[in-house]
Amino acid sequence: MSKNKDLLGCKRGIVRFSYQGKVRYGLVSGGRLRLYQGSPFSGGVPGKESAPLNEVRLLAPCRPSKVVAVGLNYKAHAKEVNKALPAEPMIFMKPSTSVIGPGEKIVRPAISERVDHESELGVVIGRSCRLVSPEQAPEYILGYTCLNDVTARDLQARDGQYTRAKGFDTFCPLGPVIALDLDPRRVQVKAVVNGETRQDTNTSDMIFDVYQLVSFISQVMTLNPGDVIATGTPSGITPLQAGDVVAIEIQGVGVLSNPVV
Amino acid sequence: MSKNKDLLGCKRGIVRFSYQGKVRYGLVSGGRLRLYQGSPFSGGVPGKESAPLNEVRLLAPCRPSKVVAVGLNYKAHAKEVNKALPAEPMIFMKPSTSVIGPGEKIVRPAISERVDHESELGVVIGRSCRLVSPEQAPEYILGYTCLNDVTARDLQARDGQYTRAKGFDTFCPLGPVIALDLDPRRVQVKAVVNGETRQDTNTSDMIFDVYQLVSFISQVMTLNPGDVIATGTPSGITPLQAGDVVAIEIQGVGVLSNPVV
Repeated sequence: MSKNKDLLGCKRGIVRFSYQGKVRYGLVSGGRLRLYQGSPFSGGVPGKESAPLNEVRLLAPCRPSKVVAVGLNYKAHAKEVNKALPAEPMIFMKPSTSVIGPGEKIVRPAISERVDHESELGVVIGRSCRLVSPEQAPEYILGYTCLNDVTARDLQARDGQYTRAKGFDTFCPLGPVIALDLDPRRVQVKAVVNGETRQDTNTSDMIFDVYQLVSFISQVMTLNPGDVIATGTPSGITPLQAGDVVAIEIQGVGVLSNPVV
Repeated sequence: MSKNKDLLGCKRGIVRFSYQGKVRYGLVSGGRLRLYQGSPFSGGVPGKESAPLNEVRLLAPCRPSKVVAVGLNYKAHAKEVNKALPAEPMIFMKPSTSVIGPGEKIVRPAISERVDHESELGVVIGRSCRLVSPEQAPEYILGYTCLNDVTARDLQARDGQYTRAKGFDTFCPLGPVIALDLDPRRVQVKAVVNGETRQDTNTSDMIFDVYQLVSFISQVMTLNPGDVIATGTPSGITPLQAGDVVAIEIQGVGVLSNPVV
């Protein structure tokens, strides 16, 4: 169960949670949790009801109709793997069925011998968009969350296409919150495994920034409210073993922690 | 507008349609259209109401949460492109936003210089499934439809990953019906452009049959009711120009016809 402490650093954000048998959205601000009437993705607004933040069970903060992810997008990482900087983003998808929330188990499939974490900044779309420019992109973004683009590295190499390697159920932890007031161009993104930092890079090192990515993807496909963009991982990916606990930590957002089985 | 004639050959099937301003599901049988109470994907059943089949506007017959597609899956096609038969299916995804219905326009994006049709048998999932065997697969399949896996061939080669090339809005025509009584292992799948047959192959030439594909994908991800599997295209893919009309024709299912702009 994710607790209040996992939201440290997030001043104002949207959570989705289970409390007294119901699933609701809420606005977290100043340590308080106000309940939404309806969903923030279909015109809902925070009402007067509240709930005790420490007693709710946080879930994935949205239910994306699609997760669009971006390949190689950090300069230092490109250098590390000896690749030229790409001329345009390379996109792929993770199925919505791969999404899990904070605290839920990442299940390593028997067919893979190497399952890696990939810490990423997740962009959550707030309004439907198509053919938007980088300058217009911020209007369509609701906020930002932590995302772990879990990857079966051996299957990725074997298949060529990434869908199987990155598409297993439980391979897309999201959460704990959608941070509303964040400059996505200068936040630190970390992966911490069993308390040890493995990835630790600032988004200022991105090849294509968040606004360019939203614009690029919107030239191809309509992005719907609640859809998520995984913005690429920095250097330092390492394998996960059963018994590990992997946390994605983003300054100003929070900590997304998941056990590995 | 798709008409009754496009369903010739389908003895019993499910359609989704717009009539008198409402979107409904219906069961087509013996030329009659009976309306569903609710959705066939959430326990709905046909009721006593009916509608005139020739006056409704047919839509994509389901609204998939995901479309999972399969690469090279016909033996003659593998031979044609000089590739060895794959040891296991290679999967990729098309976004749900790429789905359109019969008669809707396929929009060629300005960024691509070659957009091809790919005629495919589409499998529509009826019940949620995960980790099923090929023998169990038929229990989870609702039926079969025509699918056009429209592809920007130049972008497919440039990107490596298929998501952009196959993910544009309008690049996944589906329909006109979900045929309920079909043996998917021996049907003829055609693409017809402006009345001229370009693809014409029997599914008996598939490398992995429909049941093997459902089983394989379910080892990776949960398939939900209404999800669609695109089972690969046979030889004969050709480019589409503005002004063309492309039809996917499957014996026992129907004709899925779309103009190209």
